Amino acid sequence: MTRQNLQSNSPHSLDHIFHPRATALFGVSTNAKGMASGFLTSLIEQKYHERSPLYIINPKADEISGIKCYPNLQSIPGPVDHVISLVPEKIVPALVQQAIEKKVKSVHFYTAGFSETGDPERAALETKIVGELTEAGIRVIGPNCMGLYVPSEGLAFMNGFPETPGNVAVISQSGANAGDMIHGMSRRGVRFSKGVSFGNGADLKAHHFFAYLAEDPETEVITAYLEGVQEGRNFFKAVKRLAETKPVILLKGGLTAAGARAAHSHTGSLAGEIKIFDAMCRQTGASRAITMEDLHDFTVGATTSMKNIKGTGVALVSGGGGFAVLSADAIAMAGLDVPSTPEATKLKLREFVPIAGTSINNPIDTNTGGDIQIWERTIRTVAGADNIDLVLGTLPWSSSAADQDELTKEQLEEEIDTYIKMIVSIQNDTGTPVAMLLRQRGDDRAAAHLFELAAYKNQIPCFATVPRAARTAAEMLAWANRRAGLPQLF
Amino acid sequence: MTRQNLQSNSPHSLDHIFHPRATALFGVSTNAKGMASGFLTSLIEQKYHERSPLYIINPKADEISGIKCYPNLQSIPGPVDHVISLVPEKIVPALVQQAIEKKVKSVHFYTAGFSETGDPERAALETKIVGELTEAGIRVIGPNCMGLYVPSEGLAFMNGFPETPGNVAVISQSGANAGDMIHGMSRRGVRFSKGVSFGNGADLKAHHFFAYLAEDPETEVITAYLEGVQEGRNFFKAVKRLAETKPVILLKGGLTAAGARAAHSHTGSLAGEIKIFDAMCRQTGASRAITMEDLHDFTVGATTSMKNIKGTGVALVSGGGGFAVLSADAIAMAGLDVPSTPEATKLKLREFVPIAGTSINNPIDTNTGGDIQIWERTIRTVAGADNIDLVLGTLPWSSSAADQDELTKEQLEEEIDTYIKMIVSIQNDTGTPVAMLLRQRGDDRAAAHLFELAAYKNQIPCFATVPRAARTAAEMLAWANRRAGLPQLF
Repeated sequence: MTRQNLQSNSPHSLDHIFHPRATALFGVSTNAKGMASGFLTSLIEQKYHERSPLYIINPKADEISGIKCYPNLQSIPGPVDHVISLVPEKIVPALVQQAIEKKVKSVHFYTAGFSETGDPERAALETKIVGELTEAGIRVIGPNCMGLYVPSEGLAFMNGFPETPGNVAVISQSGANAGDMIHGMSRRGVRFSKGVSFGNGADLKAHHFFAYLAEDPETEVITAYLEGVQEGRNFFKAVKRLAETKPVILLKGGLTAAGARAAHSHTGSLAGEIKIFDAMCRQTGASRAITMEDLHDFTVGATTSMKNIKGTGVALVSGGGGFAVLSADAIAMAGLDVPSTPEATKLKLREFVPIAGTSINNPIDTNTGGDIQIWERTIRTVAGADNIDLVLGTLPWSSSAADQDELTKEQLEEEIDTYIKMIVSIQNDTGTPVAMLLRQRGDDRAAAHLFELAAYKNQIPCFATVPRAARTAAEMLAWANRRAGLPQLF
Repeated sequence: MTRQNLQSNSPHSLDHIFHPRATALFGVSTNAKGMASGFLTSLIEQKYHERSPLYIINPKADEISGIKCYPNLQSIPGPVDHVISLVPEKIVPALVQQAIEKKVKSVHFYTAGFSETGDPERAALETKIVGELTEAGIRVIGPNCMGLYVPSEGLAFMNGFPETPGNVAVISQSGANAGDMIHGMSRRGVRFSKGVSFGNGADLKAHHFFAYLAEDPETEVITAYLEGVQEGRNFFKAVKRLAETKPVILLKGGLTAAGARAAHSHTGSLAGEIKIFDAMCRQTGASRAITMEDLHDFTVGATTSMKNIKGTGVALVSGGGGFAVLSADAIAMAGLDVPSTPEATKLKLREFVPIAGTSINNPIDTNTGGDIQIWERTIRTVAGADNIDLVLGTLPWSSSAADQDELTKEQLEEEIDTYIKMIVSIQNDTGTPVAMLLRQRGDDRAAAHLFELAAYKNQIPCFATVPRAARTAAEMLAWANRRAGLPQLF
């Protein structure tokens, strides 16, 4: 058994990769304006250097952006666990030599130009350098990738990643898509335990990270973007073991011939047949996202009250007759129902809802006119109905958009807090999840976004559109149903 | 032949409805804060009262928001063409009497509580009052609707509608959806000739408006949201005649049983079978939107260079390998192709595109690094390829998001202007439409939105996502193909 195989069977061996004691950026340069590469600015933004030693290897500079430069790894006084390679591929052999001598634990190659080019010589070079490093007990991330995001350590590979850690892990063969996943989901309120862009996966592959995350106490939900499947049997086993106990949401790029061709020139992956991938998701109990939007939405679903949906009955509580018609269509097209309001619930609603300009039959429009109490009572009454498994609501916003512009941030936050406490209380009392649609009078998207972030912190899901909310709810339900025989995830 | 039928055969008779000499709001009240109803504030926002006489019927006030009040229509000194009824239904008989005596030309009933309630007595009342008005030669819009938006006259029914007129007409059975159409499309840069929310359609129905719009020189593209089809034969004839010479985009609410039930309680419509509606769209040469998002996107497609797409070959020019993979999948799933770059085009690209970190095979990533000249040359070269019918591109944005924050608005507009002139020139020289994706480094959506509006003014289409761009392009192409035998629309 080679050292590499030994390590891949021991997922805890990756702990040191996600928690390096010290990191060296190999080859940071500055542009004409004196700006350093994005990797350095991201680490400084996350204050990595204030928590752990951070070094730069650059023989031509003394320091860059306040970080001390060294001519090579050997000249760094303390230990170095993690090396980020930003140099062109022709410098890589020197880096490898130094890394082995310095006894580092992992090297991440941002450096590209290896097997993904399709050039046999470049592929052979990749095999050679990765072999040399792993033989020396050094794990390799990449090449041709963005590497690690570990907010608890201050490690990040793009600017604007959240500094607060969370419970969702992101694994991606593509750096751009890892960025879309982290930036996109963080705007929804999601926070992350770990993120990895692993590119060509010459050493560490998706299945190594999955094995690690299965045991990682910081990770509760795993999302992954994959192009090719490497070492199919190991991959299947790793997904199976992971999906047994944690929610796993997989997005496969290269579904079509056109996409597969693009994937091949990207990470050198052979995209494989989508039917096989689909069957694997079904057999392992993973959730399969078809688009990046799905992946974001399903993650919001799996980390909020929406995961608790128990049946297909959806109540829509909102104003606007035409909006209700299109919404009912969208809910039905997603495979859910918009059942008629039971008579007992109608009677309860009639106690406080006038006849004119309202509808107490689902979809429900009680025409609250900004009255928070009527809104709360409506949602509560509907959530308590026998045939309702999910309430989809819009906010009344107590004041018009024009007035809202005049609210102080504190007043707006106070109003939002009132809504959220009401929804949490309704969910607790009725056991029915309540999801909110981010519709608002006029153009004030900032207030809606503030609500979304505050709601997510309280596990209340928000969606931009009814089709997306309905699709996510349908997937949470279908996912639970597909897992018959496996441990319950939620 | 009754007067009503006579009028419906003469579409020009609706001219006076869209261009009233004077308007009276019947029943404006103020709320506890002294704020007037939205109808009044919308008219004031559009400066209707500065162009044409505007009156309020309210016996209890002298003026509201600076507009003079009268106790009844008769006491208004000059002529009144258009009356907007905001009173409860019990006041309506008095309004009808006054309108007939005052010889007004049209009444719009915002007032609801008629046939849409399903109550036979209320339905009979609707028939009675509408009959009285039409017998007197007065046309009725509604009841249960938002009425007219005519920017050239300053008529509007919601705040925030554009004041500048344009070439797109909006017809909607639902007021909320009319608002979503006008607000939503105006954010994309679309401007409108006329908008009508016609609710129950007791007198004027979709087919009357379609007949008018077929002859209206201000209207080039027609979009409509419909729930039930009234007077099916007249409707079919009107759509057929309209679709023959102008692009018509139809969205049908009540596709599903759940949606149809919601539609029934909304406008009293029987939603009818979607298969029949679908066949009608095919037979008449109209475009059928399945969702509200479709309707917005297809309208952008039909009013920009995207309408000129001639084949299925799409080139994607953007950074990010994983993004390219998912985009190629999305384009293929929409029924279009991502063909390999022809050798001749590859040779031209290689003249200025380095090998490392780029892809000159479609999807194309020339890794411009913010270089506008390389970006322009890439788009131009690709747009000129034999097998490319549409280029889908992202902007390089010459500076990083951080820098952009420091740009003055003038500098940003200048940069945007440079991009737009380049795209217009490429389109003119190659005959290939170029659509832009609104992706941008970081979070600066304001700059992307500024670009979108400036681009639309130059008939350059922008989309938030590749799937939406691809779906729209596929519909433009399929639409043109379905119209074999009919006059070319574009």
